[in-house]
Amino acid sequence: MTTNTQGDESLIIVMQKDADAADVDHVVERLHDIGAEAHISVGRFRTVIGALGDRQVIQQLPWEAFPGVERAVPVLKPFKFVSRDFQQEDTVVDVGGTLIGGRRFAPIAGPCAVESREQLFASAEAVVKAGARVLRGDAFKPRTSPYSFQGLEEKGLELLAEAREEFGIPFVAEAVDPRDVELVSGYADIIRVGTRNMANFTLLSELGKQSRPVLLKRGLTATIEEWLNAAEYIYKEGNHDIILCERGIRTFETATRNTLDISAVPVIKGLSHLPIIVDPSHSGGRRDLVAPLTRIAVAAGADGFMIDVHPAPETALVDGAQAILPAEFATLMDDVRALCSVMGFEL
Amino acid sequence: MTTNTQGDESLIIVMQKDADAADVDHVVERLHDIGAEAHISVGRFRTVIGALGDRQVIQQLPWEAFPGVERAVPVLKPFKFVSRDFQQEDTVVDVGGTLIGGRRFAPIAGPCAVESREQLFASAEAVVKAGARVLRGDAFKPRTSPYSFQGLEEKGLELLAEAREEFGIPFVAEAVDPRDVELVSGYADIIRVGTRNMANFTLLSELGKQSRPVLLKRGLTATIEEWLNAAEYIYKEGNHDIILCERGIRTFETATRNTLDISAVPVIKGLSHLPIIVDPSHSGGRRDLVAPLTRIAVAAGADGFMIDVHPAPETALVDGAQAILPAEFATLMDDVRALCSVMGFEL
Amino acid sequence: MTTNTQGDESLIIVMQKDADAADVDHVVERLHDIGAEAHISVGRFRTVIGALGDRQVIQQLPWEAFPGVERAVPVLKPFKFVSRDFQQEDTVVDVGGTLIGGRRFAPIAGPCAVESREQLFASAEAVVKAGARVLRGDAFKPRTSPYSFQGLEEKGLELLAEAREEFGIPFVAEAVDPRDVELVSGYADIIRVGTRNMANFTLLSELGKQSRPVLLKRGLTATIEEWLNAAEYIYKEGNHDIILCERGIRTFETATRNTLDISAVPVIKGLSHLPIIVDPSHSGGRRDLVAPLTRIAVAAGADGFMIDVHPAPETALVDGAQAILPAEFATLMDDVRALCSVMGFEL
Amino acid sequence: MTTNTQGDESLIIVMQKDADAADVDHVVERLHDIGAEAHISVGRFRTVIGALGDRQVIQQLPWEAFPGVERAVPVLKPFKFVSRDFQQEDTVVDVGGTLIGGRRFAPIAGPCAVESREQLFASAEAVVKAGARVLRGDAFKPRTSPYSFQGLEEKGLELLAEAREEFGIPFVAEAVDPRDVELVSGYADIIRVGTRNMANFTLLSELGKQSRPVLLKRGLTATIEEWLNAAEYIYKEGNHDIILCERGIRTFETATRNTLDISAVPVIKGLSHLPIIVDPSHSGGRRDLVAPLTRIAVAAGADGFMIDVHPAPETALVDGAQAILPAEFATLMDDVRALCSVMGFEL
Repeated sequence: MTTNTQGDESLIIVMQKDADAADVDHVVERLHDIGAEAHISVGRFRTVIGALGDRQVIQQLPWEAFPGVERAVPVLKPFKFVSRDFQQEDTVVDVGGTLIGGRRFAPIAGPCAVESREQLFASAEAVVKAGARVLRGDAFKPRTSPYSFQGLEEKGLELLAEAREEFGIPFVAEAVDPRDVELVSGYADIIRVGTRNMANFTLLSELGKQSRPVLLKRGLTATIEEWLNAAEYIYKEGNHDIILCERGIRTFETATRNTLDISAVPVIKGLSHLPIIVDPSHSGGRRDLVAPLTRIAVAAGADGFMIDVHPAPETALVDGAQAILPAEFATLMDDVRALCSVMGFEL
Repeated sequence: MTTNTQGDESLIIVMQKDADAADVDHVVERLHDIGAEAHISVGRFRTVIGALGDRQVIQQLPWEAFPGVERAVPVLKPFKFVSRDFQQEDTVVDVGGTLIGGRRFAPIAGPCAVESREQLFASAEAVVKAGARVLRGDAFKPRTSPYSFQGLEEKGLELLAEAREEFGIPFVAEAVDPRDVELVSGYADIIRVGTRNMANFTLLSELGKQSRPVLLKRGLTATIEEWLNAAEYIYKEGNHDIILCERGIRTFETATRNTLDISAVPVIKGLSHLPIIVDPSHSGGRRDLVAPLTRIAVAAGADGFMIDVHPAPETALVDGAQAILPAEFATLMDDVRALCSVMGFEL
Repeated sequence: MTTNTQGDESLIIVMQKDADAADVDHVVERLHDIGAEAHISVGRFRTVIGALGDRQVIQQLPWEAFPGVERAVPVLKPFKFVSRDFQQEDTVVDVGGTLIGGRRFAPIAGPCAVESREQLFASAEAVVKAGARVLRGDAFKPRTSPYSFQGLEEKGLELLAEAREEFGIPFVAEAVDPRDVELVSGYADIIRVGTRNMANFTLLSELGKQSRPVLLKRGLTATIEEWLNAAEYIYKEGNHDIILCERGIRTFETATRNTLDISAVPVIKGLSHLPIIVDPSHSGGRRDLVAPLTRIAVAAGADGFMIDVHPAPETALVDGAQAILPAEFATLMDDVRALCSVMGFEL
Repeated sequence: MTTNTQGDESLIIVMQKDADAADVDHVVERLHDIGAEAHISVGRFRTVIGALGDRQVIQQLPWEAFPGVERAVPVLKPFKFVSRDFQQEDTVVDVGGTLIGGRRFAPIAGPCAVESREQLFASAEAVVKAGARVLRGDAFKPRTSPYSFQGLEEKGLELLAEAREEFGIPFVAEAVDPRDVELVSGYADIIRVGTRNMANFTLLSELGKQSRPVLLKRGLTATIEEWLNAAEYIYKEGNHDIILCERGIRTFETATRNTLDISAVPVIKGLSHLPIIVDPSHSGGRRDLVAPLTRIAVAAGADGFMIDVHPAPETALVDGAQAILPAEFATLMDDVRALCSVMGFEL
């Protein structure tokens, strides 16, 4: 048994069976060059090197390109500020008095896209009455097909701001272009990053520089680690009000539009101090799954949810197949209250 | 607008843009050969043929191998007896007086593998006391590595039968080999099909011929449709007491051992009359996720769960990393009771 | 047997078993509202409606949100201009005299990121000498971690332009921000869209409006259909010089960084007239796989490849683990020539 | 820099940030109990323990269930006998004089299932004439739907044996039930394990005890490591004549039946001494992809391929959509010869 006390091992470098002393020296020298320490363990068949020092510097180097290296295994996570290691207590985001995180539960609801004043106001009135605390509605829609409806743009933001006045509820809207961040930020209470933009680092950096809370959806096939790295992009630019949103990942299953990765909620609660909500509408992509997936989200310990509610789903220009009716939302909120009470969440 | 009334369209055959009349005739003749009707729609660019008749006969033919056929889209599901279309009311499985399905909730718990009388009895006593209604414990273990512990075999079944006597609780155990079905059936109250064997049709047929209820785990990457097809194999041999068990699917995410596809619960409830339970232990593969995933299962409307409980997880010969302690299980059962009450389930 | 001749069926709407006449009428009326025809087939248990008319209009409506609708199955693909149906002959992209597509094979090589004049010129000289026809090298790098090297920006583009002069070879460089498109377009011969930006529709539209060829990488988990939809975004804005690039998709396999979906090459050749190349470096993420994956790409009938070549991979600031040495590239080009000859490609 | 020389590190155990000395001692004691050595590295925030000793013993224990353990990272692969570390030179399997492995290329072709003497003999005659060295044809078919054709069973094996006599070619046939291994072994030259049975360890053990070569298909979602573990099951029982067969994995892509993971060929060549072939028919599931995927397999360095050839695919009882015609096979063999010559394989 040997003991070493020089620092934090952030990477384990496993040498190939036939690597020679020169290969090992080469790795060790490079570690010393970047101010890191090497901790060498010579086995019967194989040498293992622990790299101790600044994880960002160490993990960036292409160790697997070095002669004689078999693989490099990270020990520490690449993100820092958004981790529980960095901050123990839950982040609580304040959106015009509505708190999200720290066992306060935030129901967010409204139409997927703003289509008209009538549609928006009908939806907003209903969701506020049923207990929603934040209104959703998008003015810019990134669509898979170039032939689909792309949103009302600034006119949509104006309507959302009017709805805020009328019904006394803050709203969240998506920004899809870094050039529009200032515009959206001028209207919205929370700026949303859509799933297709989770790894749009240009957009993330821009959002990190402004002062509105950001709701960051998980990328369609992002790992939890990549998702937290994306949050780190925003955080390190100075904006610490970040809300994560699980919305399903892509798998081979075709019965649902995406596969809700509900385990991400407790996993994130362990890894990070940021609040996390669930989007039952886009996860399942089916109206009949919205209520069960919402109940699941509450039982998972999520800090809220975001649901598409449309007064007439079959006329919806975007994602009508997954929107529920105002009356269905009201019924669902009764279940949510009962479950929040069992889970110890304040609604 | 044209109308056709001859039967049930079970398959839509889309012809290629450049298919000619002979290609269409060829398909139509083959449909007639097998006693099916053809319903032809000639578009400006493309002809579409609806095939009407017995779905099993029609869907078996290799339509996409026919000249001029672009693709064949099934309209009806390939399974029949396990579908809600076939039986509206929920199947309720009776296991020595414990009912599973139809809004009765069944907690199943115990060690992953039977290792010794001490280990099994310690676990059984604890889970019965905390409220489990069925004991789990395997005597045959199919393991990824040939160097891992493979189970106590018949000795394990004997111990399980003793525990049943001692604690007054039925038990579920896995059969991994069609040659062992009779043996396991002679001891166990429910026979379990493991995830690796979901598509072992030889084993499924054997289980369909005996009289014990079968607990059918979802294959690691089976679609919901394939899973129900596997259940159909058992059902059509005469055994109708089938309980489905969701246990996570394989995805790119590595934070959890598998990704619990919780949406499968409400989706199955819509498609099938069979009861469905959830395995939080094998889904997450992590002890800290067992409690949250169990609460999620109840909120999803599952008919029960199956959890690994071990008196000393770190000494476990199989899957110790995901087993919880007896005391943790007792605490969890309090949450389960509260959630079942909200969900309207009888525990 | 009935026959209908009114138009092209672009969507099949399958009604639920218990849908009534009013539900069917409702769907039919909505189809008529949008100028489409309905072709109704009444089965014993279920009614199926074929929708005939403009696919973009029809496929946009949320049919599955209509009462009584079970599902809606698209018959025609959502993209149009990039399809083989629209243009039979192969698109050949002319990049300063180098032709890509139509059985001309284009080797593209160079460093992943431009780090310095020395690094770029050493790589460029070597790859030109070995037979590369286009130089790769990025000045803007979107990185998963905010702590990684982000590129030399305009300085990098200047160096690439100098290398073009020096070695007489056009170059491809990535644009990651719609605000940079004009800048990159002012320097580069081909503008690359990275995998994280495949669904950044803002960027795609901007690229559709300028006059440089675009190299469009497949998104990490994009289906082939979504990828062609992304190409359609660029095409419909007026830019028809699009080269697709397969670079691996995300799966559960961890031995490789991504899973090269080599079948995409022949599949795309059937569906589209656009040229398609392969990126063996980013697919495998391992230096030892670059040569085999390149040979595979040629045998697959790809129109070229794009490879990371670095004079000193272990000092690379980006993706060094997958870069090959100039000498390795030269050897590989011998294999490529032999295989191109067998495959009937002009190199 | 510290150095340790006690043995081979097979597992790295990373302790949690707040683990205390007792947690570390606990792990170390357990390692000593099983005859392993502990190599401790105390960082500023975290302790890392390298476990040195017998990998099978060490990797079996549930380290992540120990108090204070964050995660356990395996350094050595779990398989041994099938690895290149164990045997440097390629295994060459001798099937009645036809060699597979070690740069001899083996074309395997024939019908997916044996349906009749006429069908089998027509296919066999054609593939032998075109250059196939092994005949394929199954007598037992595990099918997803219980309503599909399940094979001619022993009658099918008799027909295959007759075809062997008639055309002088060995044959491969699948065994799906451990009870049938003896029967199949009595007829076939190679016994095939289907994709659904890759993890049927009961069947694998049975095959390890008999003397015929085994062709082991990759499981639909098996990782390469799990696949090699399955081969290890057969090998350690005494049967060393194992041929691996890549046949596509399950992903989100729907344009192909499965996604051919062609990178598995060079990856396996690095990890193992066993021969590996490719199944282009079941990978793509489409007749038009058989030829391109076969050319790809040769360029990948595979040791052979296995293709469905049917005299009349549209009448096939199994997988007709992916079978090619005898004439198409003959044309394809010309390409295969040209590519084998470039790749340095002996056909």
